[in-house]
Amino acid sequence: MGVWGRGAYDQRMDAIPLLKSHRSIRKFTDEPVSDEMVESIISAGLAAATSSNLQGTTVIRVRNPETRAAIATLAGGQTYVETAAAFFVWCADLHRSAVACEMAGGEFSAGMTEHFVIATTDCALAAQNAVVAAESQGLGICYIGGIRNDPAQMTELLQLPEQVMPLFGLCIGWPDQDPALKPRLPLSVTLKEEIYDETNDRDGIRAYDELMRAYYSERTGGKLDRVWSEDMSALLGKESRPHMREYLRDQGFTFE
Amino acid sequence: MGVWGRGAYDQRMDAIPLLKSHRSIRKFTDEPVSDEMVESIISAGLAAATSSNLQGTTVIRVRNPETRAAIATLAGGQTYVETAAAFFVWCADLHRSAVACEMAGGEFSAGMTEHFVIATTDCALAAQNAVVAAESQGLGICYIGGIRNDPAQMTELLQLPEQVMPLFGLCIGWPDQDPALKPRLPLSVTLKEEIYDETNDRDGIRAYDELMRAYYSERTGGKLDRVWSEDMSALLGKESRPHMREYLRDQGFTFE
Repeated sequence: MGVWGRGAYDQRMDAIPLLKSHRSIRKFTDEPVSDEMVESIISAGLAAATSSNLQGTTVIRVRNPETRAAIATLAGGQTYVETAAAFFVWCADLHRSAVACEMAGGEFSAGMTEHFVIATTDCALAAQNAVVAAESQGLGICYIGGIRNDPAQMTELLQLPEQVMPLFGLCIGWPDQDPALKPRLPLSVTLKEEIYDETNDRDGIRAYDELMRAYYSERTGGKLDRVWSEDMSALLGKESRPHMREYLRDQGFTFE
Repeated sequence: MGVWGRGAYDQRMDAIPLLKSHRSIRKFTDEPVSDEMVESIISAGLAAATSSNLQGTTVIRVRNPETRAAIATLAGGQTYVETAAAFFVWCADLHRSAVACEMAGGEFSAGMTEHFVIATTDCALAAQNAVVAAESQGLGICYIGGIRNDPAQMTELLQLPEQVMPLFGLCIGWPDQDPALKPRLPLSVTLKEEIYDETNDRDGIRAYDELMRAYYSERTGGKLDRVWSEDMSALLGKESRPHMREYLRDQGFTFE
């Protein structure tokens, strides 16, 4: 037994029911989350796997109510950014590694597509680990992709250096609502064997469409008659955050 | 109580010790993982949050020993791709949403940078949830970023359509080793308050460098004298998978 601690697999517990019970929470009580719990959640998050030990993640906790209000607005009026006990911006960060390179006397040949993939993946893995940590304590969470509505303003608000990209926000707090679970596409569509065989995908999507029709209908007392494929058509039939390309280039992610 | 199931927060358990005990496992016993457990792990993974319910993730399980051997080789000789009880390729998938658009009579204006960010993030969140599910059962895991060494060959092997990108592989199996935990950067560097204040980052990196020097020394019986900033310099001082840009363009991710 080394000094670094061992025995991960003594920690065995069945987390699957917890994971399968995830819902986004958008209404929180006033109860605070202690700084100690926040640190525990974030360090559990950052214990996730990271590509070549890059650790391309920086978490910025925002407490200032004015900054929170500005972020809620730019995210499209998501007021729970203001009301959640804790709010974080998860950043894909290559800047710190560039500093480390320099400290070791090296030079960072930045900007490659692969670097972007590594940093965003690192950041997402760590965030999801933190989410599981939080939910395991009974907390509720909501990811805020809407911060990418105006990444330039986010960059200014948080004083992000080049090579740091605000990937998403995260609200954490004590749930004050109990929304239903949202059904997922059937595994017959999302889990394939050996190759990308899409023979049965349209049937699977049709079945899921009917499940979502029932889900929407129940949630709205019969008012909303919509299915998943229509959601996708509405979502993807139009441009999506067309500023992202230029913002990322300005921020040093040149996709070479 | 609706028909969709509720009560997520009755699932409360302290998963933080489990999350903090993650190590990558690269040596597995011969014991199989049942198909039932695999399905449970993958569906727990896919219960993670997803941007606008896009569900931009497809998991391809590879059982064929020849395909596994080919992947182990192209990933740089990672033999545990062959020996793990189960091996998966996690794909960022916009193709399925394009099919759904078409089914709803819409058209998918594909290829934007934001679409790429959404799909890779969705995929990483789901994969990390699956990893927690697996580790909670006592299984060990190892991500295989090395599949991006030759994404074109991966695409051919798995017959991936356009708008589907193999993001990483994942080995899952019963651990036959007990490696030490790898230290992470201190929270003083990775968790910031209000803004990206890097005043203390160099001190934090220096402290971590010394921690990693001791870690490497212990793991190699004193043979390896290296620190994290040198790792970063070696990693980022050279080109990283320079084919990625063109591969992604060919695959329909045009970064508009």
